[in-house]
Amino acid sequence: MARFWWVNHRQTVRQEIAGGFLWSPKAEANGSRSQFYENMRLARPGEIVLSFAGGAVAYVGRVTDCAITQAKPSAFGDAGAYWDKEGWLLPVIWTDLSPAIRPKDILPALASLLPTKYSPLHPESGRGNQKAYLCEVSVEVVKVILESAQSTLDHVVQALPNPPTISHWLSEAEGTAVAAIEADVTLDSTERRQLLKARVGQGLFRENVSRVERGCRLTGIENPSLLVASHIKPWRLCVSASERLDRYNGLLLTPHADHLFDRGFITFTDAGDVCVSSILSSHEIAQLGLAGAFGRNCGSFAEGQKNYLRYHRSAVFLP
Amino acid sequence: MARFWWVNHRQTVRQEIAGGFLWSPKAEANGSRSQFYENMRLARPGEIVLSFAGGAVAYVGRVTDCAITQAKPSAFGDAGAYWDKEGWLLPVIWTDLSPAIRPKDILPALASLLPTKYSPLHPESGRGNQKAYLCEVSVEVVKVILESAQSTLDHVVQALPNPPTISHWLSEAEGTAVAAIEADVTLDSTERRQLLKARVGQGLFRENVSRVERGCRLTGIENPSLLVASHIKPWRLCVSASERLDRYNGLLLTPHADHLFDRGFITFTDAGDVCVSSILSSHEIAQLGLAGAFGRNCGSFAEGQKNYLRYHRSAVFLP
Repeated sequence: MARFWWVNHRQTVRQEIAGGFLWSPKAEANGSRSQFYENMRLARPGEIVLSFAGGAVAYVGRVTDCAITQAKPSAFGDAGAYWDKEGWLLPVIWTDLSPAIRPKDILPALASLLPTKYSPLHPESGRGNQKAYLCEVSVEVVKVILESAQSTLDHVVQALPNPPTISHWLSEAEGTAVAAIEADVTLDSTERRQLLKARVGQGLFRENVSRVERGCRLTGIENPSLLVASHIKPWRLCVSASERLDRYNGLLLTPHADHLFDRGFITFTDAGDVCVSSILSSHEIAQLGLAGAFGRNCGSFAEGQKNYLRYHRSAVFLP
Repeated sequence: MARFWWVNHRQTVRQEIAGGFLWSPKAEANGSRSQFYENMRLARPGEIVLSFAGGAVAYVGRVTDCAITQAKPSAFGDAGAYWDKEGWLLPVIWTDLSPAIRPKDILPALASLLPTKYSPLHPESGRGNQKAYLCEVSVEVVKVILESAQSTLDHVVQALPNPPTISHWLSEAEGTAVAAIEADVTLDSTERRQLLKARVGQGLFRENVSRVERGCRLTGIENPSLLVASHIKPWRLCVSASERLDRYNGLLLTPHADHLFDRGFITFTDAGDVCVSSILSSHEIAQLGLAGAFGRNCGSFAEGQKNYLRYHRSAVFLP
């Protein structure tokens, strides 16, 4: 079931609209859980987002890919200096809503449609809820806003293409990490080469992982020509050379398992059970030939792997 | 069944031993088929190769990955100027055989073991067969050579690790192509960006392919988050910008199908039947969940795709 979303931008609306994304921290400043940030992981490609800033909905967007953990965009500059450096990035393409709609002006029609919990607006005043960021709303909320601007959902959907775009963001983050490695004077040329090879699962990293893992946890395949050395904590998010080469920070996976794991469509418990994201339908799981594998235990993990798996469950997996 | 190989190097022995590979043209200078070159596609990771040059076997090697189509190595310089620019590259790691063994010196023991057809040596003279390059020999031939050097197969196998290495060669070829695109003054910056994005199956190339293909031919999956836009004629081997972006030069495949197709472990007939390489065992096919898919027809191809599929069958697929 496609959901509908409403985002209350903060001071970074300009960067988010121009850049084609949403970005949020992962938790409140005091460390507590936020449903508004958890929603970033629940948004799915193709879903519609209303953009609210400065008292008006002036853009409508479409999610183009699932969220990933990403460093706070450098384009934010000083804005959100108190936010954590690592957060959720959700790719969204935007189109203007013209005229922009001020919810205050249509409050009688809108107020009763707002969610009772986690609402983006105060239903009495029509002002934005300070704590809110990405809120789930009903399709009726979206329709009321669009109708006020003489538009329709069909019209918006047609105006917004839906190209998968995550590779853009991944390669941007990897480019930053590559530049940092190339500029690191504490590394000699061999170390530098091994760190860069590790990005594509090759060289010393693959050798290291092969000392711990024999084959693919999901399919049982052991033929090296069919296996990818996959980082558990993604290469672009590792904070040190040792994390990037650590034998415990990897699994040998067949290419489809690697893709699912890398994108956060599956993860593992410490005991070796598979957790599957709601993004995968049971029909798709069957088409991938993984229905049997998902039901089986994949074998428990070494202590060293469990640290990285904890990170994977919290920062990569999309429930 | 592992096979055993004997290579008669030409004037490029130094480059092939130091570089860790074998390279051959795909056909005789007159265009006719050569079993010695076809053998490059049949060699499999882990198989042993005797290196013969200057009248002696001075190195023993192990195939580290399957062959790929690759441009003639620039390290060859003027050597083999009459060879085609495109040939087979087979990654092989080498170790010294000490002392080097001159087949002429052990001809009584060796001659009767040589193959009657496609032999690397003339059994009477012990001289190299001028036409030969990569020859299949029996395990007895390998053992006689190794015993003469006080070595054994076990000893050689232990001395030679077996890391998969194809990514090294692929990224070398891609690096050359990237540099050529970046240096091409006839391209504007948008074209250049789209050609580079096409390398990883993204951007305009993916959009183009999506106009022709709906989903994965093998699994039926249509979810864009599970699909890769895969070149039929590999990006690194395309000779023009239009080939790299051509909607007919691509398929949308799930990541495991993409990997198998990209490495030449499967290909398609024009009518849409799947051809499977002998490198995949039936057990592995079952583990990949593709036994059903391989038996089905995947739908026929458009005329534009058939040209590229012909190339894939001849230059990428490994029978």
